[in-house]
Amino acid sequence: MTSERYADRMRRVADEGAAQGFGAVIVPPSPDLEYLTGYGPMPLERPTILVLRAGAEPVMLVPELERLLAVACPAASALELIGWVDGIDPYAEAARLLPVDGRVAAADRLWASHLLGLQHAAPGVEFAAASPIVGRIRAVKDPDELDALRRAGHAADRSFTSILTARFAGRQEREIAADLADLLVRHGHATAEFTIVASGPNAASPHHEPGERTIRPGDAVVLDFGGELDGYYSDTTRTVVVQEPPEGFDHVYTLVREAQAAAVDAVRPGVEIQEVDRTARRIITDGGSGAGFIHRTGHGIGREVHEPPYAIEGDRTILEPGMTFSVEPGIYLEGAFGVRIEDIVAVTEDGVERLNRSTRELQVVT
Amino acid sequence: MTSERYADRMRRVADEGAAQGFGAVIVPPSPDLEYLTGYGPMPLERPTILVLRAGAEPVMLVPELERLLAVACPAASALELIGWVDGIDPYAEAARLLPVDGRVAAADRLWASHLLGLQHAAPGVEFAAASPIVGRIRAVKDPDELDALRRAGHAADRSFTSILTARFAGRQEREIAADLADLLVRHGHATAEFTIVASGPNAASPHHEPGERTIRPGDAVVLDFGGELDGYYSDTTRTVVVQEPPEGFDHVYTLVREAQAAAVDAVRPGVEIQEVDRTARRIITDGGSGAGFIHRTGHGIGREVHEPPYAIEGDRTILEPGMTFSVEPGIYLEGAFGVRIEDIVAVTEDGVERLNRSTRELQVVT
Repeated sequence: MTSERYADRMRRVADEGAAQGFGAVIVPPSPDLEYLTGYGPMPLERPTILVLRAGAEPVMLVPELERLLAVACPAASALELIGWVDGIDPYAEAARLLPVDGRVAAADRLWASHLLGLQHAAPGVEFAAASPIVGRIRAVKDPDELDALRRAGHAADRSFTSILTARFAGRQEREIAADLADLLVRHGHATAEFTIVASGPNAASPHHEPGERTIRPGDAVVLDFGGELDGYYSDTTRTVVVQEPPEGFDHVYTLVREAQAAAVDAVRPGVEIQEVDRTARRIITDGGSGAGFIHRTGHGIGREVHEPPYAIEGDRTILEPGMTFSVEPGIYLEGAFGVRIEDIVAVTEDGVERLNRSTRELQVVT
Repeated sequence: MTSERYADRMRRVADEGAAQGFGAVIVPPSPDLEYLTGYGPMPLERPTILVLRAGAEPVMLVPELERLLAVACPAASALELIGWVDGIDPYAEAARLLPVDGRVAAADRLWASHLLGLQHAAPGVEFAAASPIVGRIRAVKDPDELDALRRAGHAADRSFTSILTARFAGRQEREIAADLADLLVRHGHATAEFTIVASGPNAASPHHEPGERTIRPGDAVVLDFGGELDGYYSDTTRTVVVQEPPEGFDHVYTLVREAQAAAVDAVRPGVEIQEVDRTARRIITDGGSGAGFIHRTGHGIGREVHEPPYAIEGDRTILEPGMTFSVEPGIYLEGAFGVRIEDIVAVTEDGVERLNRSTRELQVVT
């Protein structure tokens, strides 16, 4: 990507910040920083802070020992770099780049230790979260970002199709998780990011950590997995049954599948994203399982697996072409089983494109 | 580890917080949380917050969809768990667990988005960094923590000895880095965490990202690498030369080696850690290379590669038996070469133990 594109992104964030009443937007090492500059150092105790102000050249404060690293980043020619040396107060240095009063937006992942240092060094400034600025801009993907998300989704779909041929009964969750991680990479991801394999009663725990439980005939198994490809993530969920479904499963599966299909159909430009949640929740509640749907319907996805906007009551983000997010209703019956079905979707000019297309018909594994 | 040990750690942090004037200490998913509870979920946009108050049972606020995961954590029996459901304001829930005024300490890695949410929900509270509390307690390692750090150090030393037999000349930095990552795992680490390979002029960039530069005869190569083993990290640096040293190298290498040896010898109980930095810096400055020593002498290490205390002017932490940190002076000559030598040391009852013991004699590779 050219430094001009990074410069354009930085300018848009500074301008959007100004439009929302912020004198500056500050960004630490994070997916936000990678999006804005192509620079991706580890977040550490030594602060690195990009400062964006409307009408001014972007400035990045970096630890002196990482200055040569920052000089080599793709956006370096569009930035002024200032190195700070171990032993001085870097927050006082950063405060000099901020307005003396008014509001400054801090990117979500800035560490509290750094925010507290800045609040101390710039007592006249009111800090607020930058996600309404940076998250809003990142939410609408460029064509090459959409392409990466499509390829990641396709690779995840092929991983699901492959895992269906594996033996489940008699093996531990963690073994299936390891298989899935291998498949994600084999089908084109650079790395596997997460592989939830939740079987039997564990399937009622949406973020279950796959462990030593041995999978048995009659289990439902929630498979929720994704990986990274060219800096963008996949994230898809399917629920399968081992040989035969547990009691009461078919009704619940059908309900989740209907809710997911209707919620995907609700996606189009101009709709508030909370409508997507309402659509799924209405069907599940009307079906009598509302109490079991214990999470939001979805989350934005891109350089982070979870990023704004969120499909939940109260998020009034109006869908625009290029936005990408998950649609993943679920029903969880503690002590018994759980069901979740998840696809990533992209908002198009006149509707929706599914980035996951593996079958949502109930699959029976052995 | 038993839940009693976790309960003891949580109690010590709450008591130390109270002793320093804090009504509560709050801890998000982070190495701090793993140390205190054995619970290690991903830090995400949904807040998970452990609240520690002297004389009260610890409480952990968790997203409802992760409640079953938290129930299974090693410290669960020593905790009260409160689930919050998507769509409500989790910061208002958290604020109910905090004092209405006074000071609250926030762990370093809490995301700014969460801290800002808490500051909004608890306007009477003054937040400050928790590292003087949690970092101070974590700095003194238990015997099993020391044992893990020793084993990690030994595995890193064997990785260095192995890499000396590799061919360097004609290969890219990233190939040597990949070799090192493999060796770290082969010699006992669970994962490789970082593998800096900085050759020729790149060696003047302390945190250089290994790239496509082809290593040549006459290069100095800084190798700075570490991995994770049982939750603890190794971190060691050696500088080698390819066939022959670049001009001016021998004097600089000798100076760094002397400074590193003297700084290690300065380590003993009762000494302020800044004395370790002063010792190394004095030798390098007296040797005429003070301007090239552009970073602190060291950092604590344990569940994080970098953690308090820091060997730098101004850090007046008094060394105690069980503290572990790096001693790693370096000299960097932009455009020419760099030298760094790093060992992890542990403070003993009457002196110092090196956790890295690979040779510091200059090694010539091919």
